Amino acid sequence: MSQKTPKSENITEVEHLVSHEQRFRIKGHKGGVFWLTGLSASGKSTLAMAIEKDLTRLGFHVYVLDGDNVRHGLNVDLGFSPEDRAENIRRVGEVAALMADAGLIVITAFISPYRQDRDTARKASHGKFHEIYLAADIETCKARDPKGLYKKACAGEIKDFTGIDAPYEAPDNPEVTLDTAKDNIEICVKQVVEYIQNVSGLNK
Amino acid sequence: MSQKTPKSENITEVEHLVSHEQRFRIKGHKGGVFWLTGLSASGKSTLAMAIEKDLTRLGFHVYVLDGDNVRHGLNVDLGFSPEDRAENIRRVGEVAALMADAGLIVITAFISPYRQDRDTARKASHGKFHEIYLAADIETCKARDPKGLYKKACAGEIKDFTGIDAPYEAPDNPEVTLDTAKDNIEICVKQVVEYIQNVSGLNK
Repeated sequence: MSQKTPKSENITEVEHLVSHEQRFRIKGHKGGVFWLTGLSASGKSTLAMAIEKDLTRLGFHVYVLDGDNVRHGLNVDLGFSPEDRAENIRRVGEVAALMADAGLIVITAFISPYRQDRDTARKASHGKFHEIYLAADIETCKARDPKGLYKKACAGEIKDFTGIDAPYEAPDNPEVTLDTAKDNIEICVKQVVEYIQNVSGLNK
Repeated sequence: MSQKTPKSENITEVEHLVSHEQRFRIKGHKGGVFWLTGLSASGKSTLAMAIEKDLTRLGFHVYVLDGDNVRHGLNVDLGFSPEDRAENIRRVGEVAALMADAGLIVITAFISPYRQDRDTARKASHGKFHEIYLAADIETCKARDPKGLYKKACAGEIKDFTGIDAPYEAPDNPEVTLDTAKDNIEICVKQVVEYIQNVSGLNK
């Protein structure tokens, strides 16, 4: 899946005997990765779970990979240094790619502040990647602060916090931009659900 | 998902708004992890791909995670030392658990020689894990040697090769045991497909 050379030698990739078309037919739609990116408190998890609910009701096969959930399991060994963030996003990009290959609509909810890390995730998905930018400004996010994290970060109690003492690199050319500072959750969910319906139909 | 304490602090698990029952209904079956374990050349990948093909034809939503494929992507950074093998299996166990949580039938094809590593994968899946032991003996596997790996390992050209200079710990109490030395592929596929049908029905 990746461009890197595996550390392990003497390995041979094995072909699936199920075609992508068979997976499409059984699910009624194409698989894909819909990658939400934005500051903490921009609404990623809330939006992701609401999109999953709506798409499931519409008959799509959907799964949300959420930053905090993944850090309790697959990425339990990673923190928030730039290196750990890069590895966090690299792994999630690969897992999302596998799930999309299985035919699922994968919604990911990760701050994913570095452009290069998101580009790595895009490459892993081989043309099935869609970047969705939650463009809420830092002042709005700080004012919301539902978990009190900005307050802690400003007080120096959390280090490497995106937007405070760690950078956020906004997407240059996202497939979808949501104004989650201005538009309410229903409007944003509708915008993404319609986008996914449009790009994931069998004849697209 | 895991029992370990996350390295990262200030993270909060987020609940999906889609229930397991909804996922069952939309797919027509329960998700689960069906973990093939056995020596190199015991038939794991061949069997896994054949099971995926048969179950897909029967309308199941299935995906194979194969050792060699995963080492080209998610686990591109890992080799075959005991530590790397443990991390390989830990990550795959977590990914399989996520996919089963999404409602998929996940077939994994990994040597996974250490009992403890397989038990870690079992725990990650929270009751959805089924161990399937491909009980082909080492002599049969050495005689098959489709990729010439045993020959290389015996000549000392590959280090840490399971069954030669690295151990294989057979399962104590697998849910299914296949005699892949004696039974042909069709018989073994049928045995696993029937098992999966039995345990993954909606009313089980």
